[in-house]
Amino acid sequence: MDKRRTDLAVEAAQLLREGGSPGALEGVLQEETEREGWPVTVVKITDDRGAKAIGKPVGSYVTIDLAGLARREEDAFGRAARAVAAELTALLDLPAGAPVLVVGLGNRAITPDNIGPKAADHTLVTRHLVEKLPEQFGSFRPVAALAAGVLGTTGVESGELVRAVAEKVRPACILAVDALAARSVTRVCATVQLADTGITPGSGVGNARAALDRGSLGVPVIAIGVPTVVDGATLAADLLAEAGKAHLDPQALRGAGSGLLVTPRDIDARVADLAKVVGYGINLALHPGLTLADIELFLS
Amino acid sequence: MDKRRTDLAVEAAQLLREGGSPGALEGVLQEETEREGWPVTVVKITDDRGAKAIGKPVGSYVTIDLAGLARREEDAFGRAARAVAAELTALLDLPAGAPVLVVGLGNRAITPDNIGPKAADHTLVTRHLVEKLPEQFGSFRPVAALAAGVLGTTGVESGELVRAVAEKVRPACILAVDALAARSVTRVCATVQLADTGITPGSGVGNARAALDRGSLGVPVIAIGVPTVVDGATLAADLLAEAGKAHLDPQALRGAGSGLLVTPRDIDARVADLAKVVGYGINLALHPGLTLADIELFLS
Amino acid sequence: MDKRRTDLAVEAAQLLREGGSPGALEGVLQEETEREGWPVTVVKITDDRGAKAIGKPVGSYVTIDLAGLARREEDAFGRAARAVAAELTALLDLPAGAPVLVVGLGNRAITPDNIGPKAADHTLVTRHLVEKLPEQFGSFRPVAALAAGVLGTTGVESGELVRAVAEKVRPACILAVDALAARSVTRVCATVQLADTGITPGSGVGNARAALDRGSLGVPVIAIGVPTVVDGATLAADLLAEAGKAHLDPQALRGAGSGLLVTPRDIDARVADLAKVVGYGINLALHPGLTLADIELFLS
Amino acid sequence: MDKRRTDLAVEAAQLLREGGSPGALEGVLQEETEREGWPVTVVKITDDRGAKAIGKPVGSYVTIDLAGLARREEDAFGRAARAVAAELTALLDLPAGAPVLVVGLGNRAITPDNIGPKAADHTLVTRHLVEKLPEQFGSFRPVAALAAGVLGTTGVESGELVRAVAEKVRPACILAVDALAARSVTRVCATVQLADTGITPGSGVGNARAALDRGSLGVPVIAIGVPTVVDGATLAADLLAEAGKAHLDPQALRGAGSGLLVTPRDIDARVADLAKVVGYGINLALHPGLTLADIELFLS
Repeated sequence: MDKRRTDLAVEAAQLLREGGSPGALEGVLQEETEREGWPVTVVKITDDRGAKAIGKPVGSYVTIDLAGLARREEDAFGRAARAVAAELTALLDLPAGAPVLVVGLGNRAITPDNIGPKAADHTLVTRHLVEKLPEQFGSFRPVAALAAGVLGTTGVESGELVRAVAEKVRPACILAVDALAARSVTRVCATVQLADTGITPGSGVGNARAALDRGSLGVPVIAIGVPTVVDGATLAADLLAEAGKAHLDPQALRGAGSGLLVTPRDIDARVADLAKVVGYGINLALHPGLTLADIELFLS
Repeated sequence: MDKRRTDLAVEAAQLLREGGSPGALEGVLQEETEREGWPVTVVKITDDRGAKAIGKPVGSYVTIDLAGLARREEDAFGRAARAVAAELTALLDLPAGAPVLVVGLGNRAITPDNIGPKAADHTLVTRHLVEKLPEQFGSFRPVAALAAGVLGTTGVESGELVRAVAEKVRPACILAVDALAARSVTRVCATVQLADTGITPGSGVGNARAALDRGSLGVPVIAIGVPTVVDGATLAADLLAEAGKAHLDPQALRGAGSGLLVTPRDIDARVADLAKVVGYGINLALHPGLTLADIELFLS
Repeated sequence: MDKRRTDLAVEAAQLLREGGSPGALEGVLQEETEREGWPVTVVKITDDRGAKAIGKPVGSYVTIDLAGLARREEDAFGRAARAVAAELTALLDLPAGAPVLVVGLGNRAITPDNIGPKAADHTLVTRHLVEKLPEQFGSFRPVAALAAGVLGTTGVESGELVRAVAEKVRPACILAVDALAARSVTRVCATVQLADTGITPGSGVGNARAALDRGSLGVPVIAIGVPTVVDGATLAADLLAEAGKAHLDPQALRGAGSGLLVTPRDIDARVADLAKVVGYGINLALHPGLTLADIELFLS
Repeated sequence: MDKRRTDLAVEAAQLLREGGSPGALEGVLQEETEREGWPVTVVKITDDRGAKAIGKPVGSYVTIDLAGLARREEDAFGRAARAVAAELTALLDLPAGAPVLVVGLGNRAITPDNIGPKAADHTLVTRHLVEKLPEQFGSFRPVAALAAGVLGTTGVESGELVRAVAEKVRPACILAVDALAARSVTRVCATVQLADTGITPGSGVGNARAALDRGSLGVPVIAIGVPTVVDGATLAADLLAEAGKAHLDPQALRGAGSGLLVTPRDIDARVADLAKVVGYGINLALHPGLTLADIELFLS
């Protein structure tokens, strides 16, 4: 089975269940809940059997289904940001005042890959204020942000760059925002996945990045991922299955569709919206005393 | 048959041939040539039988295959711009000094749709200079350029806007640059189609725009189109056919893939390159005395 | 006296008063009021004597002092947008449902000149919705928006372009947003001037644009101007006067300072803020049933 | 004397000479030469007397006068890039193949401050290629580039960030590109200053950045500065002096003009041009085997 066709644990688990191999889901727990009106699925990989079956490290993977955001439901933006904040808070275990580093991965110049840099733009950066004006900003958590240029524009691996900055900032925790690949077109630009495992090599849409996790960075790394693309071959299989034609192995089609990305027609607007949801969700989680209006004021 | 799945006459003709219905290509002539080292295919629809079969108006459709551009072959940019200029010149029948209006259609904020506005950015605009400084610029052809905002950002149809400006500028000819949808992934961001028919309703990737042709505008309209997307359902069929699995009707898959675009991974860079090729090609065709270096100097 | 050194009627009137020539302010009325907590000054030029003295056409010039916006006072953005809306409403005399054309003048690529295009970006464009989906949007006023490219990028004068579009849209009124030059550095990026006179030739920062007024366009034109620059020579005189050194004629310094613009250090952020204030103010004035939150939802 | 009103050693030396204090220029040598047709001035501060008088560290300051660039003289761009490359090469003492880190300082969102980030965009980044594809790119010098976000967007001081990356990249030399303040309006956007002293605290336009020099970074730092602004008070004094009115101390005017920047009207275009000159000059100096055309090909 091709485990790389999705970065979403919830999809990988679903594929396993559909495959129906007995015992395939040992070491994997799944729970459906709700947050601020959005469906939430938590997949917990509890041991090596689960990790091997799902193809991801042991840890918790929380998927928030924000499909309603694009429909501009009432207070959709506020509810989405608060849901991200609440699920993020549940994964974090941060002492008040402990510094945090937010990393926006991906290439700013490529629309489906720039959700990380754009989310970093929406992050309330406070570290310099806390250090220079402690009497005024001393009650804020020090937050630094880094929109890691990709390899091609800096010549430095994202992982190296994050490590270098982390050694200066010495954060208690790193939040890494990145674009993901999904298997199902219905999840693209419609979900956010939070994982307490960091980012591991081999994930992503074909551009393997170095691991960003507790092992490599020495502090917990929460990955915040948004699927923005489906690869061409995976789409083909999906469409056929939906059309009842066949259940083909995307691997067989891989050569044909390689180098192609499938995105929603309105990808630019949806990535912009989700980057703001993620950025504001991070802000609410890291500065629990602030409201969305406060953040809007600070950032504008 | 679904004739709307491609905006390229060369693909529509190929589909007909593959369909093999006898007499299907009556009223259609096709010729393969070469320009500056690039393969060129001219499809001529000579009468109503051809127009009905191909699903496009009577006229000439010239496709330049620029696949080598992305490989950065030697002098690839210069050869591509000169090839566009030469084929454009062959379609134009412009007296020296006759004014021309260049229109960049599409939405600047959506990468695969912004080739038109970007090509307009690369167009050498001279009309105001010719009018205000005739002693200095009198030998130039007066060229005006318009990057038509899409409907949603102006509230005015592109067609209305172009007509309004054309009434002021009174051009002898209009060049309209637009993004197209292709059927085959191999042609996306790899070809330029020039057509002396203007742009007709019903083409495009689902956003029918009003006709921009001699009928509506009163002057010849040359359409310069670059395929930048494939629709999701069409891709599925293509991939399957390539994989030898089946030859499915994309129509059957249409519901599943609707709202999805398939683009190359490096769509941003390739659209930028092709917009420059088209813009410089237009400049060379409209100002035959200038070199690429001259244009670079004027535009920078 | 050099009347071109300011586009603000309130400054021109102040200069006259400082000059102290008897009778200089005949035909000019001035009133100080307040709107949403911001100081408002209305200069009314009532006859030709006033027009000649001030150097601007007969009409009303309303200046809203938004200096507090940069200090991020509480609800500053909302109060500013509502103040612009209220003063604009007082100048407009629009039947419900009458169409309006919003024009953003200036060059998008030059920061202090792009307030017009950016304000147009924040305008709620409804004309196409009202026409195509009347049952759903029939209660909205039809609004079209045009970010006029400058001469150099289109080859078409802003005035020609606006006239061309106005002939298609047939608005009951045109709102034209433009950057202005102020005389005093304290007014730069700190005020909005509304004038019911349209925009007249010879104003601006050295790039005279064709008149956009009732005479040339056939419908009332409200000019919404934001001073974003001071010219170099004017600044020199201002600084010296403030330092008590001398009261020099900027004309004498003009050669030296020509080609220079003086802007606030944070010009980019302040132009962005004011463009949003102006755009939202226009939206509130044209669609009195909407709140700021509604507009945020429609535009995002 | 106010030594902070200019970042250009050539201007500081000129001020001293104008002041006429005997012996003021001991420890300072100045030489006028030419490179690719552009005037070049080298100011050498040879000891502490010179350093104290000029207000800058001991070292060489090379100013290339590129005023002709804006006039688009023939081959102006190529000559300017080659002149920067030649002067840079003269300051560098780099073994072939030694790695280099290029740092673009300044805030990308503020036009006169973004010359550093933009020059970094034009830098040919090769470090990842040399490391991953040594057989193909082994003959290239490994070059990494970093567009340092400013404090407010990352919460990390530029200096800290550069140090962090330098510890990973271990360059033999750092090139730091930054915007400067000039005293004379005629030098703004018209000169490039190269200095082998790095960047020292207290320089710049009021935003003191931490030192980037051999002392703090352990390797030679070449500063490449482009003056893009004059401060408001300095301009006032300059204009008056030119107009023959007085020779005022800008310090007296400082309060009035503070917070204001004076820039050329066409600042956006000129910063873009100079960033490209600097970036290409760096590329030519670091990769002596390449031509401008090669670089264009690699970067596009």
